[in-house]
Amino acid sequence: MGDDGATTREVALTRWADGVAAPAHDVVACEEPLEIQVRGVSIAVVMRTPGHDAELVRGFLLTERIVRGADEITSVRHCRVVADPAAEDNVVAVGLRDDVALDLDALRRNLFASASCGVCGKASIAAAMDVAPPLDDPARFAAAWFAPLTARLAAAQPTFARTGGLHAAGLFAADGTLLVAREDVGRHNAVDKVVGWALERARLPLTGHVLLVSGRISFEIAQKALAARIPVVAAISAPSSLAIDLAERASLTLVGFLRDGRFNVYGNGERIGGTPS
Amino acid sequence: MGDDGATTREVALTRWADGVAAPAHDVVACEEPLEIQVRGVSIAVVMRTPGHDAELVRGFLLTERIVRGADEITSVRHCRVVADPAAEDNVVAVGLRDDVALDLDALRRNLFASASCGVCGKASIAAAMDVAPPLDDPARFAAAWFAPLTARLAAAQPTFARTGGLHAAGLFAADGTLLVAREDVGRHNAVDKVVGWALERARLPLTGHVLLVSGRISFEIAQKALAARIPVVAAISAPSSLAIDLAERASLTLVGFLRDGRFNVYGNGERIGGTPS
Repeated sequence: MGDDGATTREVALTRWADGVAAPAHDVVACEEPLEIQVRGVSIAVVMRTPGHDAELVRGFLLTERIVRGADEITSVRHCRVVADPAAEDNVVAVGLRDDVALDLDALRRNLFASASCGVCGKASIAAAMDVAPPLDDPARFAAAWFAPLTARLAAAQPTFARTGGLHAAGLFAADGTLLVAREDVGRHNAVDKVVGWALERARLPLTGHVLLVSGRISFEIAQKALAARIPVVAAISAPSSLAIDLAERASLTLVGFLRDGRFNVYGNGERIGGTPS
Repeated sequence: MGDDGATTREVALTRWADGVAAPAHDVVACEEPLEIQVRGVSIAVVMRTPGHDAELVRGFLLTERIVRGADEITSVRHCRVVADPAAEDNVVAVGLRDDVALDLDALRRNLFASASCGVCGKASIAAAMDVAPPLDDPARFAAAWFAPLTARLAAAQPTFARTGGLHAAGLFAADGTLLVAREDVGRHNAVDKVVGWALERARLPLTGHVLLVSGRISFEIAQKALAARIPVVAAISAPSSLAIDLAERASLTLVGFLRDGRFNVYGNGERIGGTPS
């Protein structure tokens, strides 16, 4: 296994600048789940960019202290015998030397986690949508509506300003009010805190709201927004390929690279005011 | 539970600029593990910034689709009855309405993972060092040695340059050569790929090497470097509190905010040439 898999994918998007929309193309980072099986037992699913999967698995086994050295691993190969052909590049089977003890119970106790849904991106999307069906949210936003959001979130981020070490997430109402901002070392945690805030106040489903995150939009961020029924996720940086796939299937709108009033729209562009020129 | 826990911590560090070192203080983001117990069963440990723990847990339960609404959760409280008093703010017990079905087996199948080690930061550090003892690496680096690293890594990052959506990790030899660079949507994966590359080439332990990461230094990044016996981890951004704690205990050197030849040294500063003025 070498530099297999696609690292990036070209996607169509709508680029907004100075109130004018134009169709465009850009490349985004590929994100796919990888299931790691050791001696036939699934021990982890990691969301990763395809390519160098064998390195990833060997490094994971060592740094997560499942093995102590290269000589304990006898084989690392993509498992081609899976139920779904689309998943065949997303399962890796590992063989260990016979004398290596693998304490699966201890391993499970030590796993920490957020949820995953399957071994191929398609399965992940299906599982996410099985519980949270596609959005049917008539909310629309003018392009100019997005420009002030990042400054409003930054103003509510005292820790980030001091440490540079935290992700932030903010929830905006349709009138542009920042309802809550939360920070965390983990990007998913910041989103969970925001959703938890809304849950405590019986504000779910979050129809007509916009979630802004300080970093990228991974599949999990998009999935969490969908679970909370938020129709638009905006970010300072880029969405991943799998986040875009989910957005397109679930009628979720992704706004990326929101900086200086400019941004890209992936997924369901009709929620953003105006039409592409 | 409200805005409990410390979000940031002040730490002592050495600030290098233009070849001159000066002692300084800065605040870093707190990072601690949080164990989530539902009906008395541990279902996840997430690395998070303390504060708003109840929101985090409620949001996690909803967005990971363990519950479908606020009314299914009857209680969320810090569990004070734990073996280690230091961990008492790091365990949350959740009660669910009697009629809510919780399929623990399905939940476990759907967990995806990297490893965790306990419910308080101290336990995490102890567990990490139980397997990977403190470093005893005589490697020393001149301050000027670090200046060109970020440009070298960026030059090896074609995807990042195009998409802005990937984390990168690079492994440098003592002579400043970039041995390998890997990119991934997951910061941990990029490090695992680098370590896996070295493992495939029988280069472990990575004595005298430096790991450079494009983002922050979380506990897990520091832990992975320690497992691979890398004595210095450098980053464009900040380390977390728990990464610094581990570094101090394990004789690991952390270089943060490496930009334009300036940087901060946390942990074991004696590996960096010159003495603080």
